[in-house]
Amino acid sequence: MTAYEDLMTFTRTTEALAQVSGRLGWDQETVMPRGAAEQRSEENAALEGVLHQRRTDPRIADWLAAIDETSLDEVGRAQVRLIRRDHERSIRVPEALATAIARTVSKGHLIWAEARADDNFAAFAPILTEILALRREEAAALAAGGDLYDALLDTYEPGAKAADLDAMFGALRPRLVSLREAVLSRPELPGLATSFDEKGQMKLARLLARTFGYDFTRGRVDKAVHPFSSGSGDDVRITTRTVPLDPFNCLYSTVHEVGHGCYEQNIDAAYRLTPVGQGASMGVHESQSRIYENQLGRSRAFTGWLYGQMRDTFGDFGIPDEDTFYGAVNRVRNGYIRTEADELQYNLHVLLRFDLERGLISGDLAVADLEAAWNDRFEADFGFAVDKPSNGVLQDVHWSAGLFGYFPTYSLGNVYAGCLNKALRAAVPELDSQLAQGDTSAATGWLRDTLQRDGGLRTPREIITRAAGQPPTEGPLLDYLEEKFRGLYAL
Amino acid sequence: MTAYEDLMTFTRTTEALAQVSGRLGWDQETVMPRGAAEQRSEENAALEGVLHQRRTDPRIADWLAAIDETSLDEVGRAQVRLIRRDHERSIRVPEALATAIARTVSKGHLIWAEARADDNFAAFAPILTEILALRREEAAALAAGGDLYDALLDTYEPGAKAADLDAMFGALRPRLVSLREAVLSRPELPGLATSFDEKGQMKLARLLARTFGYDFTRGRVDKAVHPFSSGSGDDVRITTRTVPLDPFNCLYSTVHEVGHGCYEQNIDAAYRLTPVGQGASMGVHESQSRIYENQLGRSRAFTGWLYGQMRDTFGDFGIPDEDTFYGAVNRVRNGYIRTEADELQYNLHVLLRFDLERGLISGDLAVADLEAAWNDRFEADFGFAVDKPSNGVLQDVHWSAGLFGYFPTYSLGNVYAGCLNKALRAAVPELDSQLAQGDTSAATGWLRDTLQRDGGLRTPREIITRAAGQPPTEGPLLDYLEEKFRGLYAL
Repeated sequence: MTAYEDLMTFTRTTEALAQVSGRLGWDQETVMPRGAAEQRSEENAALEGVLHQRRTDPRIADWLAAIDETSLDEVGRAQVRLIRRDHERSIRVPEALATAIARTVSKGHLIWAEARADDNFAAFAPILTEILALRREEAAALAAGGDLYDALLDTYEPGAKAADLDAMFGALRPRLVSLREAVLSRPELPGLATSFDEKGQMKLARLLARTFGYDFTRGRVDKAVHPFSSGSGDDVRITTRTVPLDPFNCLYSTVHEVGHGCYEQNIDAAYRLTPVGQGASMGVHESQSRIYENQLGRSRAFTGWLYGQMRDTFGDFGIPDEDTFYGAVNRVRNGYIRTEADELQYNLHVLLRFDLERGLISGDLAVADLEAAWNDRFEADFGFAVDKPSNGVLQDVHWSAGLFGYFPTYSLGNVYAGCLNKALRAAVPELDSQLAQGDTSAATGWLRDTLQRDGGLRTPREIITRAAGQPPTEGPLLDYLEEKFRGLYAL
Repeated sequence: MTAYEDLMTFTRTTEALAQVSGRLGWDQETVMPRGAAEQRSEENAALEGVLHQRRTDPRIADWLAAIDETSLDEVGRAQVRLIRRDHERSIRVPEALATAIARTVSKGHLIWAEARADDNFAAFAPILTEILALRREEAAALAAGGDLYDALLDTYEPGAKAADLDAMFGALRPRLVSLREAVLSRPELPGLATSFDEKGQMKLARLLARTFGYDFTRGRVDKAVHPFSSGSGDDVRITTRTVPLDPFNCLYSTVHEVGHGCYEQNIDAAYRLTPVGQGASMGVHESQSRIYENQLGRSRAFTGWLYGQMRDTFGDFGIPDEDTFYGAVNRVRNGYIRTEADELQYNLHVLLRFDLERGLISGDLAVADLEAAWNDRFEADFGFAVDKPSNGVLQDVHWSAGLFGYFPTYSLGNVYAGCLNKALRAAVPELDSQLAQGDTSAATGWLRDTLQRDGGLRTPREIITRAAGQPPTEGPLLDYLEEKFRGLYAL
């Protein structure tokens, strides 16, 4: 065997174990008995230790040194690039630290879920302080003298820099704020006013998953506190949740996670259990989930079809026609929750988190001051006060899982989705007439063939530039949002 | 740290990874998407490779050599005994073989499930041939010149020998055959004749689990093709199945698996994630599942209580009184399926498998001849012909999972349960009046305190001898069965 073949055999086993770790995470969120939490944290730590040992195995550096990259094809070079990146990052983090992080976030998640249920930030603060300290230690090891936050951000969005994002978000913000103010000055659009049974919501959620091409023979849909997608290749699972008065929460969370899931399911099977066989970054992943959810799922054309499905499932639910339904799906209202926010305000929720977590990582913001800082910033951005921690600082799972540097990839994904949507509309001019029939195949097929099937073959920036025909920029997203919401609110 | 502490730290991590492997098995049987099977076999193989590397790690021998056992307490000595045993067995099996077995049985299981659904043994034979060849190779490595079958049997029942079991089963057989013939010469007892909805069955199954002390905060009950129990410590899950016309299948499968599950849940928490913190052997495990299911669950006293619960759940289901219900629960009829067999005939099903699999392992019986051998032996033992493979050679999951040497531990467990029941009845004379109230606490408490909480602290033979007050022997089981079935059939 050549050095490249040895390296790939070793890497396939590592990736298989990483899939097992993902499966444990799914289990913890959906089916794990409550009393198993402490034991599970030992199990997670054991598996994380194995993964860390493999990722830091000195043979990887030897194999990498022995490989003649000019003898490899494009896929081989991409595998080497991703393996080298992962190895070089991993050897900077001591095993004891990696194990401590795994153990602590496993506990932290359970404590967060309880604190959130009890609306008690103080119950979460001690473990969050521990998690933050461990992640800062990791960031310092990764950054090797560079910026701590960039080191974490790079975990989720290879090559991204906080300063660049700050500039991009700075350009987004004034046009979003101005559009938001204009919209909120107009009369409210009608919303839903009845209750929707869970069974009907889950039936429609599964129908939507199928409609967007999710393959149930290689995945499943379950309920969890926080919707998520996990796994790669042939075992890609998603979760959703139901709220009786807000079926859109369930339906659009499902379409969102289906976007993530289809990205993984649609990657070329030849790349299975390799670094190329996975989504390229969190930002690219989010571009898929958001374009499925918003540019396709919340379009006038598709909501017209969905309106008929809702009527078939729930009978008359008080919305008289497709146009009113389109307004109900997209109406802009004050709200606390990021995952329930409309497209217009969503990025403002993300920017709040991006700024706060940069403060936490830099040390400018203490965990003890986080709840107050959140509440102050929220009121400043949204014009009204947070009423309880579960509507504020405790609403998201991310920090309990140690995911600092992850939030900005949501807005970056929206920017990417804006660019992709512009290119998709140019490539498939008849798209709306298909969406109006509940047919997403031209859109999802274009995304599959243009970028999904290639997985991590290229860098995030290359992927978007290649698919959109230009480097990522916030303009198309803003143009799309302004056109959509000016139309909805007759501005 | 001392050598013992180093060894135990290393072992705890291995045991945590073994728990992860068990969780993957549960996932595969209950929730895994069908299309994930091939990828899962890679994941299983990767994890099995890690476990095998750890179990064969040369540091284990160094630590064991450095430990002064006289400085250890009883628990420490038991840990060392179990770790040494596991290490010495593991280093005999090459990693490539261990990995090949994991990969093949993972595939084999899926092929078996399809072959069983299609009633097509020929579709299963090729993979079974592969599995058998791999297990024989493993047996040869383990036996180091000794008996191949004993080497496999020792995996599940440390210290047991096929020749001893053969002698014990030889003593069981004539009295069982004679009792069976006497019973079948009598008029049939009335059985159930209506359909029982799945929801009611699962509700009662969960009630029975609670009644026998199963802790739902550290476990869960799901449906699967084959009932099983998996996991140790704080994450012990069981499965069951429902058949509309036979609620006893669901209810007594549940009580059986609850016996396994409670054994694991009741082990002293101080032993968690160590070799002592698990059931001592499959035979001892089966003694717990069988005493819960049969000597307690199918007793006249307990079925009296269960009759009332059945009436509350299903209304009038055509059984007029407790005595008739007791007869319906215990009636002896011709049947194909081991897991549905009554107490009287159950061991005859096991002896058939014990003899056939000894033939497979010795090479006297070829896989190509297995279906015919099964059918011939079945007709000879039970007096009627197998009608289809799913009622014959394809009915059990075990061989598809490579579990050769496992079946005899079922009958050994029944023998152990007979011994334990005799001692339990002597220790708790008022047992029946409690069972008649649906109160199992004195019985399950005696089992917990007498043997369950100690896990693998002692050898299987020591455990039964200590709890029963005499070495294991078939006499008490036979006495119990003869008294019970003579009463039921007025012999």
